[in-house]
Amino acid sequence: MTISYALELLGCISFAISGTFAGIQKRLDIFGVLTVAFVTSIGGGTVRDILMGELPVSWMLDKFYAGVTFFSTIATLIFWKRLKAFKLPLFLFDTIGLGLFTILGVQKGLNAGLKPEICVALGTITGCFGGITRDILLNNIPLLFRKEIYATACIAGGLVYITLIKVGIDINITRFTSIIVICIIRIVAVKYKMSLPRMY
Amino acid sequence: MTISYALELLGCISFAISGTFAGIQKRLDIFGVLTVAFVTSIGGGTVRDILMGELPVSWMLDKFYAGVTFFSTIATLIFWKRLKAFKLPLFLFDTIGLGLFTILGVQKGLNAGLKPEICVALGTITGCFGGITRDILLNNIPLLFRKEIYATACIAGGLVYITLIKVGIDINITRFTSIIVICIIRIVAVKYKMSLPRMY
Amino acid sequence: MTISYALELLGCISFAISGTFAGIQKRLDIFGVLTVAFVTSIGGGTVRDILMGELPVSWMLDKFYAGVTFFSTIATLIFWKRLKAFKLPLFLFDTIGLGLFTILGVQKGLNAGLKPEICVALGTITGCFGGITRDILLNNIPLLFRKEIYATACIAGGLVYITLIKVGIDINITRFTSIIVICIIRIVAVKYKMSLPRMY
Repeated sequence: MTISYALELLGCISFAISGTFAGIQKRLDIFGVLTVAFVTSIGGGTVRDILMGELPVSWMLDKFYAGVTFFSTIATLIFWKRLKAFKLPLFLFDTIGLGLFTILGVQKGLNAGLKPEICVALGTITGCFGGITRDILLNNIPLLFRKEIYATACIAGGLVYITLIKVGIDINITRFTSIIVICIIRIVAVKYKMSLPRMY
Repeated sequence: MTISYALELLGCISFAISGTFAGIQKRLDIFGVLTVAFVTSIGGGTVRDILMGELPVSWMLDKFYAGVTFFSTIATLIFWKRLKAFKLPLFLFDTIGLGLFTILGVQKGLNAGLKPEICVALGTITGCFGGITRDILLNNIPLLFRKEIYATACIAGGLVYITLIKVGIDINITRFTSIIVICIIRIVAVKYKMSLPRMY
Repeated sequence: MTISYALELLGCISFAISGTFAGIQKRLDIFGVLTVAFVTSIGGGTVRDILMGELPVSWMLDKFYAGVTFFSTIATLIFWKRLKAFKLPLFLFDTIGLGLFTILGVQKGLNAGLKPEICVALGTITGCFGGITRDILLNNIPLLFRKEIYATACIAGGLVYITLIKVGIDINITRFTSIIVICIIRIVAVKYKMSLPRMY
């Protein structure tokens, strides 16, 4: 199993957990929760595969994605009562998934020989899409557009990735550093209520 | 004309009618109704084709889909006043379309050699997508997430289909049975206000 | 540079500007505005490319699209304060983008040998999709479904295009005429509050 495949499954698990908490918070029934978890988990990778023309999409060819999503959701449904909280876990797992999928998207773009700035855009879309769809389905205002820094963290992480690769840093250190950068920017921004300037 | 093609057109007609009633209910103008009917009718098949990489999507190559949708919408616009009701017809045609498209999605997945559990997911997406898009466009809470059993019916019908095929039942009996299963689960669930358990 | 490519970039610029104004109006931060501008600008072309199976989508292969969108957004952010208005510029640039992308969609369909009525549908989807996504992301009721004439203008423009091409008119005159038809129908309809009949 390659590291990139392991990161992809980790991303699926993180987003599945965040989707499950979002579904519980909205008081959906069990299948509603499963559906939201599934969409959140595979949404980003699906859009990436479609945009790049790698069809059928990866979760249809490799049932590991769907399996991992299914068991993460069930496990979350079983254990969540011990936590008695949705906000913090939802936020944390959303952040980890965001970091993982953004970097995977950037990497896939580079592998396909796309221009660096396009890869950053592709990574940002891959990272944000699952969460945006989750929020639209649940009729929440997408996290992307609340005051929090969201897409910005992805763009920053993507730029770090591109820079480190160009400088010649080892790919695994690059991956790890960029994912950490995305998570830290987002956590710090939310903790200190930082936000970007508006127009008026 | 194969049976599977006939079922696909029947599904388009059902969803076009349900989309038309939803549009009338929201007091859209004629082209707004046509647009919603079109999206509802071809939405599920379009997503299925995109996910499987069968592009261009089928309605672009075969104008029967668009034609059938167009005439169903016009016919519904002409005859709806005799009914003076939107709720019941919207519900019934949505249910029939759901059954037809779910089974067609499962079947397409099996034909492409995908794993059974992936086929059930593909069928559920094919069945639900048109209606979800209709609801999002009209700013309704998607049926999928109301208390009613919706995706659950598709998953159940998909499992019945897979089981009957494996046991060796004739394909047409299998199709018919699974579609009926989906419709009955949904109708019974709505009539008796059944719902799945929630988390709290 | 072909005329069709120039029109595509012009369409991107128009929709990027309209997306920027819509984002400012909703008081998004800078990256939120950039994201909305990007989605509005490349949304229509992306859906067209996906439906036709021309993948990877064009903005991933040619960084001109993203570049043009980026600079239009930045320029709009710098200059908008002189205007101190969002409604009128949002409307005007949305209308120009609508005309350009509709005609480009119809043309791409004809080049691919699709049936004329399918091309009109493809053009309407290409024209409307960017704006619809912008509105859904910003939680506005999509322009498409407000009382204004929107998709109707695209359908009319598409029919004009198909007719003029069949009659044998020069392609550039045809393009120009159909784009003007779409813009005029929409502007006149909004100015005089014209709308299509409803069902009740």
